Formats: sequence, C-alpha cells, structure tokens
Amino acid sequence: MNALIAHRLLDLRPFWVMKLLARARELEAQGRHLIHMEIGEPDFPTPAPIVDAACLALKQGLTHYTPAVGLRALREAIAGYYRQHYGVDVDPRRIIVTPGASGALLLALGAVLDAGDQVMLSDPGYPCYRELVRFLHGRVCALPVDASTAFQPTVDHLESRWSERCRALIVATPANPTGTVLTAERLLSLIDYVHRRGAITIVDEIYQGLTYEGQPVTALALSRDCFVVNSFSKYFGMTGWRLGWLVAPDELVPVVDKLAQNLFLAASTPAQHAALSAFTPQTEAILQQRAREFRRRRDYLIQRLTEVGLTVPARPKGAFYVYADCSALTDDSMVLVQQLLEEAGVVIAPGADFGEHQNHRFVRFAYTTSMAELARGVERLQRFVGQSF
Amino acid sequence: MNALIAHRLLDLRPFWVMKLLARARELEAQGRHLIHMEIGEPDFPTPAPIVDAACLALKQGLTHYTPAVGLRALREAIAGYYRQHYGVDVDPRRIIVTPGASGALLLALGAVLDAGDQVMLSDPGYPCYRELVRFLHGRVCALPVDASTAFQPTVDHLESRWSERCRALIVATPANPTGTVLTAERLLSLIDYVHRRGAITIVDEIYQGLTYEGQPVTALALSRDCFVVNSFSKYFGMTGWRLGWLVAPDELVPVVDKLAQNLFLAASTPAQHAALSAFTPQTEAILQQRAREFRRRRDYLIQRLTEVGLTVPARPKGAFYVYADCSALTDDSMVLVQQLLEEAGVVIAPGADFGEHQNHRFVRFAYTTSMAELARGVERLQRFVGQSF
Repeated sequence: MNALIAHRLLDLRPFWVMKLLARARELEAQGRHLIHMEIGEPDFPTPAPIVDAACLALKQGLTHYTPAVGLRALREAIAGYYRQHYGVDVDPRRIIVTPGASGALLLALGAVLDAGDQVMLSDPGYPCYRELVRFLHGRVCALPVDASTAFQPTVDHLESRWSERCRALIVATPANPTGTVLTAERLLSLIDYVHRRGAITIVDEIYQGLTYEGQPVTALALSRDCFVVNSFSKYFGMTGWRLGWLVAPDELVPVVDKLAQNLFLAASTPAQHAALSAFTPQTEAILQQRAREFRRRRDYLIQRLTEVGLTVPARPKGAFYVYADCSALTDDSMVLVQQLLEEAGVVIAPGADFGEHQNHRFVRFAYTTSMAELARGVERLQRFVGQSF
Repeated sequence: MNALIAHRLLDLRPFWVMKLLARARELEAQGRHLIHMEIGEPDFPTPAPIVDAACLALKQGLTHYTPAVGLRALREAIAGYYRQHYGVDVDPRRIIVTPGASGALLLALGAVLDAGDQVMLSDPGYPCYRELVRFLHGRVCALPVDASTAFQPTVDHLESRWSERCRALIVATPANPTGTVLTAERLLSLIDYVHRRGAITIVDEIYQGLTYEGQPVTALALSRDCFVVNSFSKYFGMTGWRLGWLVAPDELVPVVDKLAQNLFLAASTPAQHAALSAFTPQTEAILQQRAREFRRRRDYLIQRLTEVGLTVPARPKGAFYVYADCSALTDDSMVLVQQLLEEAGVVIAPGADFGEHQNHRFVRFAYTTSMAELARGVERLQRFVGQSF
C-alpha cells in the first residue's frame, strides 16, 4: 500500500515540533508540568464580539454556502480595513476570502506553478511554504538568509539564484520564525525585481497587525504586481475558524476564483459572518490591548534570554516569536531542545523546523503564553543552563 | 500578467451554471421571479441542535486549532456512526476530519498522484473531480457511462481504458448528477480490480444519508483498499460550515496527516464542535424527516418531468438530483437551459457541466427547493414546452 504514495511526497518532512509535542504529551500524562513556548497560536480566545456575531448569524439560519470568493460584505469590510489603517484603496473584487492563509497560499501558488517551476523562499522560513510548493510539483529554491539582512531576502539573494524556471518568490513580513520585518523600500525592490523577471511575489502579511515597532507595511500600498496573503488567525484571534484572504492582481482574479470553486467551494460561512465583526471599534480595542501584551512579553523575553546566554541577532519587530542563537550553549540546537523538554520542562521549537541554513545554531521561542508562564519558563531555562554549562 | 497563469490552468473549465446564475441574478434584479432548480445544496438550514452546540463551544472559548486530523471525540463519533448505521468497525485513527469533502478529495488525490498520473472518472460526473486532478498535474481518463449501467462505471469500462499510468478511480454513490447508486457487489468489483492493478479507488459517499431505495452502502464494509470521502454538508445540512472527512487505508494515514498539516493546518474548530451534535437522536429525527421530504420531492419530480416529455433513464435512488434526457424536446440541452431561464423563469443545469458524453441530451434538476416551488417550476416548464414544441 505504501507503493501508492506519490513519489514527490516520500520525503515530506516531519515537523520536529510535532514529535516534541507527542513526547510532551507523554510527559504530561505522567504528571510532569511543562511550559509551552513552541505554539504558533495566540493563547487568547476569539474576542467576544466576533463570537457573538457568529452565534447571531447561525441562529438566523445563515449556514449555506457563500460565493467562492466570499461574502461581498466581508470583502468590502477588508477593503475598508486597508483604507482606514493603511490609507490604500483596494478594489474588493481583488479580495478573495479563503480557508485560512493556507488556502490563500494554495490558490496563489496553484494559480502560477507548473510542474518543475521554482519558488524562492528564505531559509529559515515558515515550513509549510516549501511543502506546499512540493505538493504542487514545484521546486523550492532556498535563499540562505542571516541576521545581516534581518533574515529577509534581498535583491542580491534573488540575483545570485535566479533561473528561467523561477515563477514566484514568497516573503513574509513580519516573518516566522524570526519576527523580522521588511521595510517598504526593501519589499518594493523585491517585488519589482521579481516582476521584471516575469514572475510574481507572494507577500505573507499574516502577522501584520502584530507589528511592535514602526508603522506596519502592506505590499498593497507599494505595488499591484504581487499577491498578498492575510488571515483572521493571528491578530484577530480566530485561528480555529480557518479564515484568511488573498489579494490578487486584477488579471489573476478569474483564475483564482475558478480554482477556489474547485478546491474549496467557499470558505466557512459562520466564520465569514463572525469576521464581519472583526473590524468594529469594540473588537479593535480588544485586539490592540492584546497586541500591547504581546509586545510586553517580547521585550521581557528578549531581555531574559540574553541574560541566560542566548543572543537575538535580528530584532523581532512583529509576530510572536524570538529566533535565538544558542551557539554559546551548544553546537546542536536539536539536542538543546530535547534536553530542555526532558530535563527542564520547557518546550521550544528547533531551528531544524524552519530550514537548513545554520539551523543547528537557532531555536524559536513563541511568547504565546502568559507573562507568568514565560517567567517560569525562563527560570527553568536559567537553572538548566547554570547546571549544565 | 496573464502570462503568469500556470499552463495547466489555461483550459480550466467554467461551470456553465455559474454563468446561468449570473444571468439569473441580472433577471432577478430586474424584478423577474425565477424558480431555482440548479442548486446542489439543501434548502434547509443547519439543524438547531448542531447550531446550539457550536454556540455553546464558542462561548466556552473553544476557538483554537485542533489537531490536523481533527478532534479525537469527533473521529470517534464518526466511527460510532458507521458502527451504528452500517454495522462496520472503523478505527477512528483512519478517520481524518477535513475542510469539506473538497478537502478530503484534495488529500486523497494529493497523496497518490505524481505529475502525469491518470485518474479514471465517469462521464457524466461531478465536475470538481476533473479540475482537482488537473490542479494536481494529473490526467483525467473519462469513462463514458450511460443508463445501461446506471451511469456508473463497470469493470469492463476500467478494463477497456486501463493503462500503467492509472493511479486512481473516483466513483460516487449516490452520484451527482444522476443520483444513481452502486450495489455492494458492483462497488466491490471496482475496488478489487483497481487494487489488483496497484492503484486505489476513492469512493465519494457524500450523499450516502440521502438514499431513498434499498440500504445505503459504504465501501468501508467491503474493503480496506480504498479511500472513502464523506461530508457533513448534504445529509447533515452543514454545507456552509465546510466540514467533511476522509477514511484512509491504515498505511496512508501518516502521509495524509502530514499533508493535512501543510495544506490546511486543521478543519474548522467551531464546525467540529458543532458536528459532535450531528449524531444525536434529536438531530437524527430532524435529518430523517428531511430525507423523507427529499424523497417525496424526487417522486413528484420524476413523475411530472415524465409527463412533460422528458425521460429519466436511470432511476435516481439518492442525492437530490434528477438527470433527465431532453432529447425529445431539443438536440441541444444547453439551448434548452438558456431558453428555460430567459423565457420560462426556471433555472436548471446543462449536461455540459458534468462532462462531454451525450451531454447535449441531458439536463440536471435539483430538488433543493420546496414542493410548492417545484410544482410552480414544473408548471412553467410544461407551459414552455406546450408553446414551443
């Protein structure tokens, strides 16, 4: 039966963090207390006004399919959000509501990739990008990036690796696992370069609302020659609802619409009605308070990690991750991650989950737990380091 | 910018019914009253106990991601459903909860197809199958079927078209657009043939609960060498929630799990908590009453269409469609469909949406509207036929 598995999936990579989590659950079942700093999901539940809107819609019987591209009112509300917060006019017809950012990425990549086409990605980066590319029979061209460019690609990176088979670049700002952001200038230079080479940039802005320094940037204010991916998951606190959106260039909207019809039929109707309440002042007040709390956690975590002997070579200006260099403590971050789990009771993600470039030097901390838990986690880390090194 | 569209998508087919619907909306905006018999979605809203369960879960803050394969309790509830209604034991670990049947199909096809691999499909059939295969760089091998085999494929069909590149067969029972079912014997003969040739059958059972004659069949009672796709959409009345499931052979569960992590992260959490109430006696009473109503509509529609001069050459034993032969009225069903929309105010789907084989002879009626509307629709049809022929 294993002979049935498609060849291109035979090396589908495991997420190490899933194995760590399975082990963590074993330990917890034995009564061990663990501090979870590996989870890429806000600890806050969905804001009450969003939940209330969903229940109201459900009780009104709004449970049927929406158009494949989403409710018109939601597409207009998203356009309104861009106008209000970023001062940019986006035609709602370019906005396709999707099942999470995952769905948006699948549509964008699916619309442009033929078998064997290449997609450029930064290494380290979000691991699903590369697996989605492979799923679509594309090839990943990894761009090794480091702290000298804030772990983001530059035109030089593109230039050095470009080939005729390159069809797309994916960038994320703020990024996972590093939390670093691209300036408007740098982002535009990438989009322009890729466009001039006849390819397209996919800009993942899912952590956009969680930007703690400087004005958040959207590629939509810079260029029409790119896809923009966003989501209600992270900033809006709607992870489990699986709702995101894709902004496509005008000319690609029809093919994306047809793909959405065939791949998904439509995004979740309850989630769409819920999300209509994501942009109200009442919800926004909750979300901004949460963003301030994330920022407070970030500042605390960076300082404490540095005290423990880790370094944070590129400042994480957004998202909820700190990508820390642990080479002063170990020459193999995977071993450190396993030791922290087994001996210190702290769960974090190894660099190996985000790529190959210098991955043994790095670990990712997520500050998606309370200040009290973060403090306990860092204390455990400090004790472990004090005993072991 | 159009040069960016992947080559394999350049002939992505439109759904004619989408064009008809756009025209229908124009007419309705002008004040015309139309009878909709084209919609592949129950007219009933989601049963109240399911809605109530969702709201309760939401108010409890259950809004975070679930595991990629779904809530354990829901996978066990689905296994319980198979045990109770079909007398078959299915290991819950083989059940992967997905974003709709669409998500299940994408996982199943994605797990086994390499570029250029062939998938056998009956023509006529559900149009998304062929587009999903193309999306995954596979090739469709259409099996022309007609009323002599209840519009379902046989081993003879497979034998006559089999090649070494065939990796999968998709069958649906009950089927869209025909409503016909496969007997257990015929279904098993297909699964066995395909398995012996080193490929796998994907059995789409999304209309299973809406079977009006004979005992509904599940491939899970017949064989372990197949995928089974099902959904909460049609029978359970949860279309807009986008929730389905895939039952995979044991050995393919790990690769399907990893694909689900990368493609979707997980299915909707509110939908999963809602669906936990889909199997209660209270909900079941509602669903069975709805199934009886569908059956009543089917019986009425078949009789009235026959009186008008259409024929129904293969008895639709399930789903909510009648695939009617209109060749006594026209030699081009597409023209008839357009005339019915423009002149009679009745919207139905043309055979062309479901394939190429004899598509000009057939139209699909969906009985997803009330008896009163169906009666008005048939009266309009009768008047149109009386005036035109």
